[in-house]
Amino acid sequence: MSKKDLYVSSELASLSQEIGISFKYPQSQKHYRQGSRPDIKVPYRLISQSPTVTQDGQTLENPPIPVYDTSGYYGDAEAKIDLKAGLPKIREQWIEDRGDTEKLSGLSSEYGRQRAFDPKTEHLRFNHITRPRRAKPGKNVTQMHYARQGIITPEMEYVALREQMNLSEIYRDPRYASLIKQHPGEDFGASIPKHPDEITPEFVRQEVAAGRAIIPANINHSELEPMIIGRNFSVKINGNLGNSAVTSSLTQEVEKMVWSLRWGADTIMDLSTGANIHETREWIIRNAPVPIGTVPIYQALEKVGGIAQDLSWPLFRDTLIEQAEQGVDYFTIHAGVRLAYVPLTADRVTGIVSRGGSIMAKWCLSHHQENFLYTHFDEICEIMKAYDVAFSLGDGLRPGCIADSNDEAQFGELYTLGELTKKAWEHDVQVMIEGPGHVPLQRVKANVDKELAHCYEAPFYTLGPLVTDIAPAYDHITSAIGATNIAWYGTAMLCYVTPKEHLGLPDKEDVRTGIITYKVAAHAADLAKAWPGSQIRDNALSKARFEFRWRDQFNLSLDPEKAESYHDETLPAEGAKIAHFCSMCGPKFCSMKITQEVRDYANQQAGMQEKSVEFVKKGAKLYQ
Amino acid sequence: MSKKDLYVSSELASLSQEIGISFKYPQSQKHYRQGSRPDIKVPYRLISQSPTVTQDGQTLENPPIPVYDTSGYYGDAEAKIDLKAGLPKIREQWIEDRGDTEKLSGLSSEYGRQRAFDPKTEHLRFNHITRPRRAKPGKNVTQMHYARQGIITPEMEYVALREQMNLSEIYRDPRYASLIKQHPGEDFGASIPKHPDEITPEFVRQEVAAGRAIIPANINHSELEPMIIGRNFSVKINGNLGNSAVTSSLTQEVEKMVWSLRWGADTIMDLSTGANIHETREWIIRNAPVPIGTVPIYQALEKVGGIAQDLSWPLFRDTLIEQAEQGVDYFTIHAGVRLAYVPLTADRVTGIVSRGGSIMAKWCLSHHQENFLYTHFDEICEIMKAYDVAFSLGDGLRPGCIADSNDEAQFGELYTLGELTKKAWEHDVQVMIEGPGHVPLQRVKANVDKELAHCYEAPFYTLGPLVTDIAPAYDHITSAIGATNIAWYGTAMLCYVTPKEHLGLPDKEDVRTGIITYKVAAHAADLAKAWPGSQIRDNALSKARFEFRWRDQFNLSLDPEKAESYHDETLPAEGAKIAHFCSMCGPKFCSMKITQEVRDYANQQAGMQEKSVEFVKKGAKLYQ
Repeated sequence: MSKKDLYVSSELASLSQEIGISFKYPQSQKHYRQGSRPDIKVPYRLISQSPTVTQDGQTLENPPIPVYDTSGYYGDAEAKIDLKAGLPKIREQWIEDRGDTEKLSGLSSEYGRQRAFDPKTEHLRFNHITRPRRAKPGKNVTQMHYARQGIITPEMEYVALREQMNLSEIYRDPRYASLIKQHPGEDFGASIPKHPDEITPEFVRQEVAAGRAIIPANINHSELEPMIIGRNFSVKINGNLGNSAVTSSLTQEVEKMVWSLRWGADTIMDLSTGANIHETREWIIRNAPVPIGTVPIYQALEKVGGIAQDLSWPLFRDTLIEQAEQGVDYFTIHAGVRLAYVPLTADRVTGIVSRGGSIMAKWCLSHHQENFLYTHFDEICEIMKAYDVAFSLGDGLRPGCIADSNDEAQFGELYTLGELTKKAWEHDVQVMIEGPGHVPLQRVKANVDKELAHCYEAPFYTLGPLVTDIAPAYDHITSAIGATNIAWYGTAMLCYVTPKEHLGLPDKEDVRTGIITYKVAAHAADLAKAWPGSQIRDNALSKARFEFRWRDQFNLSLDPEKAESYHDETLPAEGAKIAHFCSMCGPKFCSMKITQEVRDYANQQAGMQEKSVEFVKKGAKLYQ
Repeated sequence: MSKKDLYVSSELASLSQEIGISFKYPQSQKHYRQGSRPDIKVPYRLISQSPTVTQDGQTLENPPIPVYDTSGYYGDAEAKIDLKAGLPKIREQWIEDRGDTEKLSGLSSEYGRQRAFDPKTEHLRFNHITRPRRAKPGKNVTQMHYARQGIITPEMEYVALREQMNLSEIYRDPRYASLIKQHPGEDFGASIPKHPDEITPEFVRQEVAAGRAIIPANINHSELEPMIIGRNFSVKINGNLGNSAVTSSLTQEVEKMVWSLRWGADTIMDLSTGANIHETREWIIRNAPVPIGTVPIYQALEKVGGIAQDLSWPLFRDTLIEQAEQGVDYFTIHAGVRLAYVPLTADRVTGIVSRGGSIMAKWCLSHHQENFLYTHFDEICEIMKAYDVAFSLGDGLRPGCIADSNDEAQFGELYTLGELTKKAWEHDVQVMIEGPGHVPLQRVKANVDKELAHCYEAPFYTLGPLVTDIAPAYDHITSAIGATNIAWYGTAMLCYVTPKEHLGLPDKEDVRTGIITYKVAAHAADLAKAWPGSQIRDNALSKARFEFRWRDQFNLSLDPEKAESYHDETLPAEGAKIAHFCSMCGPKFCSMKITQEVRDYANQQAGMQEKSVEFVKKGAKLYQ
């Protein structure tokens, strides 16, 4: 154990303080929508704006702009942040009230019990571990199960309100009349709601029942603020973190998790492969208001000293239960890496690049047996439905380069994932499907089309894809290009890529860059699909830009701090933030300023505009 | 005059030295293809690779990888760089040999003459200004004119060889057999050559004659290494620079230009609006191996003290001649901003955001007259063809935000640009068309489709477009997403956007980020259109990645320095660069390593692969 680990406790205390400071969004207020029961309080954020000052000195109010909020308890002005205590358990009563779960007397997993009483990791242990909860015998506690029985759970209501924010109100408020204008979308056959009023709890229930959307919400993660992943909802993003044998500490991982929420991650995957995976995960879940995903095979491999051949179903099963009882919300399971597909990767340029995929491939070959995740899939489903862990069916054979994209190994696995989706749904277990990887732009759409067709519209969750291999250090960008397109075509959640991809583990700044880059991709796809209200923020920011309300422009942006600091590099004076010009053109030569004059002039010329429209309609030609 | 300007001479001397150092690309050699005459020497770069070391210790050669070279004389190992002397005039003899131009006794432009003898700017002046060249009376010296007469100029031959590099050779060399594998493209009706052999001088001539491609090559820019812009060639990128009244010096602008070439800019636009525009431009052109574009109305406006109403045709005409005789290769001319369109912008969220567009709009409204660039278009063509300056018909009414995209003002102007394209072609003047701007993803393709239809397939040259407004400080990314898509759909050249867009003027590092980001976009589009050989670099880099040839991976990337430095943040030791693992997974847990084992195993199992293919063909299902 490193000396650093000894300081976990004091590190977390000082991190708690820092978070309190860093979660202050400029000119923002966190609001809550009240649901049908008192303990359903759904957050969104309002960014207030300064008024427009007209040339004759009049001031005109600009209404506050709503944004989807992922900041959780950390973003609440009243919050007393204490990472050592964990977050409030807001779902506890909802789960309790359903009456279909029980608190166990202790951990069911052998490994979990072992760690709980290991004096060597005592100092790393979260202090407030409670007894785990599990479905009562014969009960199925998945959101899909409830949905299929016609039950609208608090979780479903929560996500409906969350997606809706205060948009229904805004759509009726005349102050927003010009801001809610939105271009028609192209959603490639998805059924995006046309109006915020259509985003109802019943709509959520139907989408979950149909398997087109999932609400990852383990009954042991009662700190969770539920969210939904499906192509008929806003596009979500996942941020990865996790230590490795080479680098990173427990506190750093907790910090990256919270930092990701600060910038807008919707879910977090803990991909740790280094020391103290169990303890790290506990700290993360207890402090995470967003769903946490893991790849259980990583930890299983650690348990057998990194020897893939030594993996076994009993060991893996124990790992699933260990993690399910901690509260992991979705598991990446590489059950589609079937023995017969493995040789299909032999002629690839980069073989198998998925860690989980290569572990399972090695296991299959060593034993010359079918993948035990595939053969034990029904038993895995039994575990999933006892805790409501969702499947993220892993693409263990995803292409690791442009050359290997869309090949037989990749699509062979995808078809198997479709088969497994059906099986999981027989158990009412929620499923999403992981997707590539590295795919050139002209081959991206085929991935979505095949996934929707062969996996029965289960939500697609893709990494990028990267549209070229030649830009290491810029792969947040190469992948954001693919990600925006694939999300537009129908991917429900995007897994972020940081600038360090292929080169090293991301640090805090890389996480920020990766998250913001993926917020861009997700938002651009929302615009393209015409997700209700998605254009409001663009419209408001552009209006602020046009009116030289610099502060509003910064505050409405995805990264206000960076926008302001870039502006200040050339014009640092406070006065420049109310100046009617910027450093690009200088004070005399400003197109925005000239436009205002054009506008005033045009207003004076009655009928001019009608004439112009007529002129354009006639073909706008003089010469020919 | 600022004190800084006094040091231009010594600044340039020390910059010359720095350039000599910074243009060393790792493991790269610049090569030249010999054309049909001794002075046609066309550059490309070869990146050499280290051998593959197999598990049994065998070494297998990896052949060098060709990349398109924009580094010009600066990238030549033998070069003696002296910015104060300017570049070698490689086109001088080609132009002379055509016998249709004459050297004038002095500058034709009044303003040019005035500046040439102004003692106040003496210290800023380039020392080796030669007499300008112009078409002999009655002669037309445009590349389009020659092309239409069936003449293949050295410029056309040059660009054919340049696009082809050594690919024809490589396609026949067995060492490259696996590297040249390429996925079929989707080029939306363009006619991308299928094989490098098809990229002939005659093909170039036909494309230029048809107006589908342009070779911007002013007869007064004999330092130029010709390049081609057209959707049946590789996608090009432009980097902007230029001072403003608020910031930047002459030397900084020269530095940004050279720095842009270092990273791969294909053309440069000098958008200066500040002091000493004339002198800055001279330094830039004399040191530019790439085409230089300008927006002459910017300088014209400076000449009338920033008062748009005071602009006039004679003043503008003099500015065109002044710049044409310096050697500007293409002019952005906002001749499509017609009086009747101006009121169409009045209800926009951000009005007119193009500087040129707003200047012309103001002029039109002030005089209540038609745009003088439109009414004098024939006379402008007369100037263009006397020097072979290409039109970049400006989109003065491009949308400045998502809300204003694809509106009547924008498309009205586009139709007029089509009308003007036809007119320019009557004069055999080369034309490209500028495009937006801010456009959400679902509306991007309509821009290309309309441009191709209404502007008769003249090359499209777009800024981004940005697919959302909400990410200032990340607009290189928001725009690269739109840029990749629009280039795939058929845009020939992309104008870069830096992280400072909307916030400030880019510095040297922003230029680098902007250029590399746009190299990504252009290359991803080349892959999507299946430009011959475009996948070789991806294939080679991926193979290097898979084999843990870290150095090769860095060297083959768009930004080797950054890739290496990111890698070194976690594993700085030199040994880690030959290690068979990286910081993401650590030594024990490496998917790439496991894959090699899988591959070895699969090779042992004869017939296994055939069985697997058969299995997949049968539907790969056991469960159902």
